[in-house]
Amino acid sequence: MSTTHLTDDCLFCKIIRGQIPSHKVAETDKSYAFLDIGPLSEGHTLVIPKYHAEFMHEVPDEYLADAMPLAKKIAVASKLQYYNILQNNGKLAHQEVPHVHFHIIPKNSQEDGLTMGWKQRSVDQDQLKAKLAEIKQNL
Amino acid sequence: MSTTHLTDDCLFCKIIRGQIPSHKVAETDKSYAFLDIGPLSEGHTLVIPKYHAEFMHEVPDEYLADAMPLAKKIAVASKLQYYNILQNNGKLAHQEVPHVHFHIIPKNSQEDGLTMGWKQRSVDQDQLKAKLAEIKQNL
Repeated sequence: MSTTHLTDDCLFCKIIRGQIPSHKVAETDKSYAFLDIGPLSEGHTLVIPKYHAEFMHEVPDEYLADAMPLAKKIAVASKLQYYNILQNNGKLAHQEVPHVHFHIIPKNSQEDGLTMGWKQRSVDQDQLKAKLAEIKQNL
Repeated sequence: MSTTHLTDDCLFCKIIRGQIPSHKVAETDKSYAFLDIGPLSEGHTLVIPKYHAEFMHEVPDEYLADAMPLAKKIAVASKLQYYNILQNNGKLAHQEVPHVHFHIIPKNSQEDGLTMGWKQRSVDQDQLKAKLAEIKQNL
């Protein structure tokens, strides 16, 4: 396996390299999937790119493109019906390990799995248009 | 645009077709991105496959592969630092529209954006091994 894009001191890079043991579910040439040892629900799995980056927007497209089809394969094999896919960027956004990871979190009841607050803001059309113009300027 | 994989009565299929107006951020041949009109934070954007499916595990790989690189492009253009990528499957898991959508939710403060509960379960190695064997049987 190429380790060009991994670092020496990252927990998840070490897991990919096999230097730290993990409950490996599956892997491809670009992604590695393993059970979360502090699961929010039974079968909580992480899919990580074999490329060290702290934030999603730093990961090359070919690694990002690989992650969701692998997550799907695992969701099917795990016979999931209800679940959340979650990827957190930054401590403020609840990221705990600074190596991009996609959570697959089974949701079996109101209590288990991911629980969320959903506080929608009231916005008007002008605010949405202004935001849209701002984003599109940089696209 | 091919509309083969869209349905007639889905809100998001209608948005993709332009039958319902949206604040379109970007699109590719496989994905469509627009501002959420009930945002959790300013710039909250949805990326949806141009393929009607209620659950992520029903979406063909090529559509799934396209979604994250587009989300990345939007995160960069939106100059996001901290944010969450979230995709909910099933009402129990907080899915509101039954057409797969990836949320890009900027996180600017503890209060805005996505707020989460994170109640980890205590599991032992044997439980993890048993779960792993169960999943791998179907892979």
